[in-house]
Amino acid sequence: MSLASNRLDALRAVLKQMGADGFVLPRGDEHLGEYVAPCAERLAWLTGFTGSAGLAAVLPDRAAVFSDGRYITQMDQQVDAAAWERQHLRDTPPATWLARHGSSRRIGYDPRLISESALRPFLDAGLDMIALPANPVDAIWTDRPAAPCTPCVPQPEEWAGQSSRDKRERIASDLRDGGESALVLSDPASIAWLLNIRGRDVPFTPLSLCFAIVHDDARVTLLIDPAKLSDQTRRWLGDDVTIQPPTALEDTLRALAPARVQVDPASNAIWFMQILEHAGATIIRKGDPCLLPKAIKNPVEQEGSRRAHLTDGVAMCRFLHWLDENATRTAELEATIQLDRFRAASPHYREESFPAISGSGPNGAIIHYRVTPESDRKIRPNEVYLIDSGAQYPFGTTDITRTIWTGPDAPDDDVRNAYTRVLRGHIALARARFPKGVTGHALDALARYALWDGGLDYDHGTGHGIGSYLSVHEGPANISPVFRPVQLQPGMILSNEPGYYRPGAFGIRLENLLLVQPSAIGEEKRSFMEFETLTLAPFDRRLIDTASLQPSEVAWLNQYHARVFEQVAPHLNTPARTWLTAACTPLHAG
Amino acid sequence: MSLASNRLDALRAVLKQMGADGFVLPRGDEHLGEYVAPCAERLAWLTGFTGSAGLAAVLPDRAAVFSDGRYITQMDQQVDAAAWERQHLRDTPPATWLARHGSSRRIGYDPRLISESALRPFLDAGLDMIALPANPVDAIWTDRPAAPCTPCVPQPEEWAGQSSRDKRERIASDLRDGGESALVLSDPASIAWLLNIRGRDVPFTPLSLCFAIVHDDARVTLLIDPAKLSDQTRRWLGDDVTIQPPTALEDTLRALAPARVQVDPASNAIWFMQILEHAGATIIRKGDPCLLPKAIKNPVEQEGSRRAHLTDGVAMCRFLHWLDENATRTAELEATIQLDRFRAASPHYREESFPAISGSGPNGAIIHYRVTPESDRKIRPNEVYLIDSGAQYPFGTTDITRTIWTGPDAPDDDVRNAYTRVLRGHIALARARFPKGVTGHALDALARYALWDGGLDYDHGTGHGIGSYLSVHEGPANISPVFRPVQLQPGMILSNEPGYYRPGAFGIRLENLLLVQPSAIGEEKRSFMEFETLTLAPFDRRLIDTASLQPSEVAWLNQYHARVFEQVAPHLNTPARTWLTAACTPLHAG
Repeated sequence: MSLASNRLDALRAVLKQMGADGFVLPRGDEHLGEYVAPCAERLAWLTGFTGSAGLAAVLPDRAAVFSDGRYITQMDQQVDAAAWERQHLRDTPPATWLARHGSSRRIGYDPRLISESALRPFLDAGLDMIALPANPVDAIWTDRPAAPCTPCVPQPEEWAGQSSRDKRERIASDLRDGGESALVLSDPASIAWLLNIRGRDVPFTPLSLCFAIVHDDARVTLLIDPAKLSDQTRRWLGDDVTIQPPTALEDTLRALAPARVQVDPASNAIWFMQILEHAGATIIRKGDPCLLPKAIKNPVEQEGSRRAHLTDGVAMCRFLHWLDENATRTAELEATIQLDRFRAASPHYREESFPAISGSGPNGAIIHYRVTPESDRKIRPNEVYLIDSGAQYPFGTTDITRTIWTGPDAPDDDVRNAYTRVLRGHIALARARFPKGVTGHALDALARYALWDGGLDYDHGTGHGIGSYLSVHEGPANISPVFRPVQLQPGMILSNEPGYYRPGAFGIRLENLLLVQPSAIGEEKRSFMEFETLTLAPFDRRLIDTASLQPSEVAWLNQYHARVFEQVAPHLNTPARTWLTAACTPLHAG
Repeated sequence: MSLASNRLDALRAVLKQMGADGFVLPRGDEHLGEYVAPCAERLAWLTGFTGSAGLAAVLPDRAAVFSDGRYITQMDQQVDAAAWERQHLRDTPPATWLARHGSSRRIGYDPRLISESALRPFLDAGLDMIALPANPVDAIWTDRPAAPCTPCVPQPEEWAGQSSRDKRERIASDLRDGGESALVLSDPASIAWLLNIRGRDVPFTPLSLCFAIVHDDARVTLLIDPAKLSDQTRRWLGDDVTIQPPTALEDTLRALAPARVQVDPASNAIWFMQILEHAGATIIRKGDPCLLPKAIKNPVEQEGSRRAHLTDGVAMCRFLHWLDENATRTAELEATIQLDRFRAASPHYREESFPAISGSGPNGAIIHYRVTPESDRKIRPNEVYLIDSGAQYPFGTTDITRTIWTGPDAPDDDVRNAYTRVLRGHIALARARFPKGVTGHALDALARYALWDGGLDYDHGTGHGIGSYLSVHEGPANISPVFRPVQLQPGMILSNEPGYYRPGAFGIRLENLLLVQPSAIGEEKRSFMEFETLTLAPFDRRLIDTASLQPSEVAWLNQYHARVFEQVAPHLNTPARTWLTAACTPLHAG
């Protein structure tokens, strides 16, 4: 019997003891975020599947793992088919699968790992869902790692740009306006922003895992392992922040009753509602109020992002120069290590902001490709190479994608045509001016128009929000083919990353970060906005069909390259500067 | 005492007899459509206000008329301020106004004139809303016109392109799939489409006012004044359509109980729900199922629309030629009469599809300007003139806007700059290709990009659907800054009408109709669409700053003008053809 089957059988035995017939286990922890600590990788431990989005459903006689289109191949490779069915989240939603195979069963779930919004489809499907008092996987996962406990450190005002007191006052004022006495936060990124603190509890995002309750007098109860807090950090937090261990969470919530307490049905686990409701509190459902002010960067954060992008631009230009000379003597994994080395030359570099995507030839067409020692591939002559990576600096987070032709021959027209259409979309969005009130969705087609004109498209969003020394994927605004009613506002930072993917052949993506700025243009009655491109690195001119560009597009590209050279060149040694001079030479309209 | 005050006092007396303190009267009839018959113009009779969107709210001690931004000036002119407050619908919603001034009152409403969706804000505001058994205005409007009774005539299959039997079978099949035994239709346009009939009961749209109940066996009960039906039309309708007088509506609805009956909460008056619920039927709330198939024109309707646009293009080109020689010798009203004469030269011309907008100079900046003998203005030299009009032909409905420079001098740069940006937006949308799944909202920014780039914009949608010898404003798709989750599909006809308005100075709008077509471009896995421009009339080259156009834009314009000439010229006499030759001469890229 396989390891997977053994673990599944053991789980079923625990479920039986708990009075449940089945179980639903989403990937994620109590904070419902993107990156999770090893101790919360229950889905991976149970099923073998390590993708960033997934869910397991267990019944007495069958079990299934679900993920989306990005991870179907990976799921097939990692999950033992003898124990688990493999299902596509959209084609066979877990609630549908459970209703089909276990409609009369009592299905357990861990209420700390699922939001009210995420539980709804299971209830709508008529399933008998039972909140379990503890996670049954924890009972059988005997060598489960300990919870992370890294230092929680201050994020000084020279980088945060606004005091925690000011931020808390603003949130508390809204609570008072709504007649609410407290607010529950379980997103560590929101708490990091609110209290100006950072940590290293999860990879890629400088977070301290914790919970917080914000009171209507702007005081905060912070539920965090005290071992994470130095005396300095305690002083930084100040007297208005009361520290409690996470084990005190339930009692702290109960003590809020019978007041009106604000909870976010999307970012808070349903467990919070269940505890509060049981204690007699009135639950006010509203979105996390930190999301919008966190997304709108203040002037200090904006300046920090510019500094991060200059630092990162120097590393990227050194990397692109190195790649120009060494691409065909290296492999995908080695290239990411090299890029990391260039970044580490800065004393401010902390870590990657996400696992780098380094895809050559056909690997570039896998949108969420992650190079591993097993998948590693030598980069070959005359092919397309795609590098998508980012960095964390204490003053800003970066995310950049460039697509390179390895040479030595010229690329064929097919590749240049696709690259040039992606570039035209990138430029159209970068140049856009737009009035107040416009959402990112309304601008999405600008980045696709040139691709669509050639019958091409890409199956992902055009842009996501980016944190300020926080998560590289941040809400609430985005630029996407899916409508989200969030208006763009000055201070927001969004990515601009159209692409094109030819399965089995090559992938193209061109990504800069954009800062929304007020525009001087526009008539009195209506204010306009425009984008400042933050990222500083040249686009590969070997892949550009200049004759297909409009004069205004060539002008934008030349101005951009001139700015890259002006800002980055002073920080390069002579060979790299010579390379950058050539890479940034003006193109001439065809 | 004024006429308005007298009528208001009389209304209050009737309300008192009916046991109500107040009253809410929306503009519209039992069919909740855009154009209404004179007998249903209760709002105009009571308040004097004749705008196409409005509502009156009456309390014992105060009363108000509400309309939107388009009609504020008109409302101020038409409504007696001694009797009525004038309010902006968005700034002061009627429900808010009533809650403020009459929260403890019993507010009557006519359940035949308001949908469930439209009533909701009043209930949400906590008002005590009472459905009145009859409309109190009818009790005092002693010289109220009779209901219209025009002939209901067949729309032959040579123009409809699909038999009513086929259409009814498709709807009935969906009813059976949903386990519903009947469907209530109160939109005469839906019934006209479903039964292939037309009438002349309201201006501008060839409708026969009626109701229908579609049964799950594809039979229909048509509730219509029998006087509208000739023997020929009765034979056309066939044995599967049972005729009942409108007075039988209530009994017919009651007889449907206790079955499941489909009702549209947006297009059916709430009276239908109240009657059905009271009778014990189960109400299934779904959108009108005729809307989507009516919007997707079949090949015969598409060919009919092309023919309508050629017929209309000949009239428009003759008009534009005439205007070129006579603009400054005429006035706004005279110009619309002249255009109507050119259209009437075709034996197929039936009527305007909406009241023409003929605005010179500052009148052009009034987006929904309607020329009247009072507002009429002489068209002057060296100004901008805007004409937006449409026609009904039995094979298609048209809607076109052109903006003209009257000369003889050249327009200044400011006007040419704005016109050229509007034209670039028009061309960007007309040339767009896009994949399956895209909504009109997602394309809206394409028509605004060039305007936004200059800090300009327009405060209306870019495109609306158009009927096939039916309403010039047809749902469910549109191209608008407001998101609506309706995907574009081949066969839909939408307008393309970006604009720019400088209050007190001039207005610019350029409108062609677009037919959504499958595109030959695109990779196997994803089908693409593109637009066929239907409208045939040149754009005024005096207003085009060719140097600001991209080469691809000049190419589109030259191709379009060549097609206009090729199709229209054979139908013109020599002077008009000479004029069209000049108007369609290729422009040369700057």
